[in-house]
Amino acid sequence: MNHFEYENRTRIIFGKERHQIVGELIKPFADKVLFHYGGESIKKSGLYHEVVKSLAAAGVEAVELGGVKPNPRLSLVYEGIRLCREQGIRFILAVGGGSVIDSAKAIALGVPYDGDVWDYYLTKKQPEQVLDLAAILTLPATGSESSDSSVITNEEGQLKVGYSSYRIRPLFSIMNPELFYTLPENQVANGICDMMSHIMERYFTNTTHTDLTDGLCESTLKVIMKNAEILKRDSRNYDAWAEIAFAGTIAHNGLLGLGRDQDWACHKMEHELSAIYDVAHGAGLAVMTPSWMRYVYKTNTNMFVQFAVNVMGVEASFREPECIVREGIDRLERFFVSLGLPVTLTELGIDEINLERMAKKATWCKEGEETPIGGFQKLFWKDIVEIYRLAM
Amino acid sequence: MNHFEYENRTRIIFGKERHQIVGELIKPFADKVLFHYGGESIKKSGLYHEVVKSLAAAGVEAVELGGVKPNPRLSLVYEGIRLCREQGIRFILAVGGGSVIDSAKAIALGVPYDGDVWDYYLTKKQPEQVLDLAAILTLPATGSESSDSSVITNEEGQLKVGYSSYRIRPLFSIMNPELFYTLPENQVANGICDMMSHIMERYFTNTTHTDLTDGLCESTLKVIMKNAEILKRDSRNYDAWAEIAFAGTIAHNGLLGLGRDQDWACHKMEHELSAIYDVAHGAGLAVMTPSWMRYVYKTNTNMFVQFAVNVMGVEASFREPECIVREGIDRLERFFVSLGLPVTLTELGIDEINLERMAKKATWCKEGEETPIGGFQKLFWKDIVEIYRLAM
Repeated sequence: MNHFEYENRTRIIFGKERHQIVGELIKPFADKVLFHYGGESIKKSGLYHEVVKSLAAAGVEAVELGGVKPNPRLSLVYEGIRLCREQGIRFILAVGGGSVIDSAKAIALGVPYDGDVWDYYLTKKQPEQVLDLAAILTLPATGSESSDSSVITNEEGQLKVGYSSYRIRPLFSIMNPELFYTLPENQVANGICDMMSHIMERYFTNTTHTDLTDGLCESTLKVIMKNAEILKRDSRNYDAWAEIAFAGTIAHNGLLGLGRDQDWACHKMEHELSAIYDVAHGAGLAVMTPSWMRYVYKTNTNMFVQFAVNVMGVEASFREPECIVREGIDRLERFFVSLGLPVTLTELGIDEINLERMAKKATWCKEGEETPIGGFQKLFWKDIVEIYRLAM
Repeated sequence: MNHFEYENRTRIIFGKERHQIVGELIKPFADKVLFHYGGESIKKSGLYHEVVKSLAAAGVEAVELGGVKPNPRLSLVYEGIRLCREQGIRFILAVGGGSVIDSAKAIALGVPYDGDVWDYYLTKKQPEQVLDLAAILTLPATGSESSDSSVITNEEGQLKVGYSSYRIRPLFSIMNPELFYTLPENQVANGICDMMSHIMERYFTNTTHTDLTDGLCESTLKVIMKNAEILKRDSRNYDAWAEIAFAGTIAHNGLLGLGRDQDWACHKMEHELSAIYDVAHGAGLAVMTPSWMRYVYKTNTNMFVQFAVNVMGVEASFREPECIVREGIDRLERFFVSLGLPVTLTELGIDEINLERMAKKATWCKEGEETPIGGFQKLFWKDIVEIYRLAM
């Protein structure tokens, strides 16, 4: 086990109707908030109205900024920063999925900062201060409701870049599983793939003696798959949504990766797809993950045998480990297919044209120099092209 | 799954030599601390000297208060409160196991409070403010390093009472597995039993749809048992200590009990043993737990089948569930025996004389009125006497 430090200030408020107390939860911190959200869905569902009502009842003034899109854009972040400065806003309430929360985090970083907020994403430097923020989650997927990370797309240059700091964890996040009943099927599937990927990016490691986090990762993955099956048949199942939502938070609050080297190659390869083709993050991960696995497993076959047996339920045997590994990967892929997720680039409408360009962007390859990605197996741009090809 | 709220501010700093930076970690919060500890062991091991050196190097003045005993006493808490007030101390550093940290928490509660700190333990009311505190852990067991609870013994009246508030979680806790190499075998065994009990008190529940926390509990219990076996053979095994220590924190940081009714009868029955006979908490739990299980399992046999199969490794079969349950309990008891723990009251030197008195104290039984204990199955004083008898 590696050394580690862990700190997570986010208070999780979980259960039916809990979003209705958002006003009184914010009031001790601020009299005025940026109410940040995405499109029309929260208006249709009535959530928008309930939030407005709760804020008003608590005497919290709301300045609205809607319009966050999946793969949230830097341009809207700039608009949010400008709005907060003009109106003297010191607290951001994100009502939405990971894109809205990530956008809110970027605004929280940018408001008190003299320079361009994009600096943080490029340089990874730590902020001296950020605005407080809170979230009401409407789509369990990215774990952004208690994570220390934010991923923003800079439309100029088609760059999708992640940033992490413990200071951007929300003060609190409200999770009411009932809010998820009306989500479109494809968004549910994408979300499930994303949260599984957050665990797998941490799980596949060459760090030894990681019994505890191995077990926690495996349990959480199994719970997600079991309950995803239930939601396929019954999208209004409170208990299945509660398990999925709670698991989505655990998947990315940092706990499951403590003391272990992590990978994150699939996320980085996927970010290139999203940046150029604007594909849904979860769908991109469903495509990249099995191909990545097939390309890298020989680096540590035993780790993949453990995955196949402990997570995918392949019967343990010891004489043909590679058969077990392949069966485990096939089962994961079949699970993605069963959720209606794509598992090839072709299904995403992506052809061979940009593979090399995306691979080189992933490793920041310039003038022969590059920074390989992946903690489990180092991948250079040529490896990444191979993995993209495996995924065609 | 039940509704829940969760918040845990404690920063965990985990790894070799990490205690040496304690001074610089405290300096931003305080120039003067109460350095609270137990007996001579931290002086013998050199830890005392390293802490003093680190505090001095950072310019943090240390006022010492040693002498914390297992089942920490209210009288010493009063002394700590007096000392902090006299010397204007606003930060407490606990260097020790759970008893020292629990004592530090009580002092942190008491210093800014006008009344008697024991009020909190009796009334369970929440404090308006507490002093900041931090810990260097020397014995993984109670989970107090990131828990919201403190258990104090009031010598007058032989009362051992627990108290919880999110405000008494340490600001940070330092865990260096190397500090545990020289612990006496019986303390190690007691600690392992205590952390397992913290999980089992949360695990046995009648709440339905608790897949995620079921799985996390089961994984963590298995990791503890596996690594306890390693430590029996090799008490200086860094990796096994790292797993045990990390698991001990997870066992009692609150996460594993979220969304589920909890039990805590074994802890309460054990507190009565400790209060009168001053037995080690872990040893008392090893005695009480299997007897409690045998007395209550019929309330929810399936829950105990799941425990037997998923935790104790009993082969799953479905036609004779009670055989499986009994085998699971027997295996747990044999595991405790293998660690050298007592599993009967007789081994603890406790006879029948005080059974009724302890049972009545556990339910605060007075003039025919009593408050039953236990979330899994309500236990009245007569039930508790039966369980004590089963444990003879």
